[in-house]
Amino acid sequence: MSPLDEHCVFCKILSGQIPAAKVYEDEETLAFLDIAPFNFGHTLIIPKRHCHGLSDMPQESRDALFRAASLLAPVVLRVTGAAGFNLLMNNGQAAGQEVPHAHLHIIPRFMDDPVLLHAPQKQYSGEEMAQLQEKIRCRLAARQESQEQK
Amino acid sequence: MSPLDEHCVFCKILSGQIPAAKVYEDEETLAFLDIAPFNFGHTLIIPKRHCHGLSDMPQESRDALFRAASLLAPVVLRVTGAAGFNLLMNNGQAAGQEVPHAHLHIIPRFMDDPVLLHAPQKQYSGEEMAQLQEKIRCRLAARQESQEQK
Repeated sequence: MSPLDEHCVFCKILSGQIPAAKVYEDEETLAFLDIAPFNFGHTLIIPKRHCHGLSDMPQESRDALFRAASLLAPVVLRVTGAAGFNLLMNNGQAAGQEVPHAHLHIIPRFMDDPVLLHAPQKQYSGEEMAQLQEKIRCRLAARQESQEQK
Repeated sequence: MSPLDEHCVFCKILSGQIPAAKVYEDEETLAFLDIAPFNFGHTLIIPKRHCHGLSDMPQESRDALFRAASLLAPVVLRVTGAAGFNLLMNNGQAAGQEVPHAHLHIIPRFMDDPVLLHAPQKQYSGEEMAQLQEKIRCRLAARQESQEQK
């Protein structure tokens, strides 16, 4: 089976059918400039194997993706003069993911630029936080146990 | 030298001086619920060694951090009923980083929730994109060469 999906726009960039301003490539990943950047230098890094997001990404792709980000981010900052950067991966349509091929954004940031990454903060009331903590711990333990049995 | 910084609030969570609703822990990372969540279940994952962000994080911490995220995110989604999630790491004050100890947000997302992760998109004009691409490629090549010589 090909690691690419013929209907996926990022797979078409990987296969060369669609051009992109490539800035970095290794065995597992490709990085290119976003054509609709939040700030100039906004870079996308994608795994070379088609997957949807963090949850179905093979470990090798995941390690390579964030390794590539750690290589690229300081360079993007140096070249653009940005003061910081966001590392962002949207997983699922509800999270703002537009292309269903995992991609990691490096977004160069400047003090008081118009990029918005915030929300009204919520407050846990009473025992809500402890209850949620317990549910996550239990579910995680069950999941890890089931994976060990496989 | 201790891997912790005595003035850092996340190091104080690591040392037990400040309590947190811990949901996961391994040799390299600790995860706990954000006390001011964008949505309930908003989780922070931190490396156990004090570092500021992606760029000064040791490889072992980086691999473990995103491995922990890939374990936790599906569980947080299952427990909260969220439809997707953002993986976000703010690097530097300009990027919205409030605690200067690297931390990765898992933000559960629901369709049409009030979490904002966007910006007016810019457009490259003329040769700007190709010029920036070339600068990044050159700087990255120089950096990799200098690291190989070390």
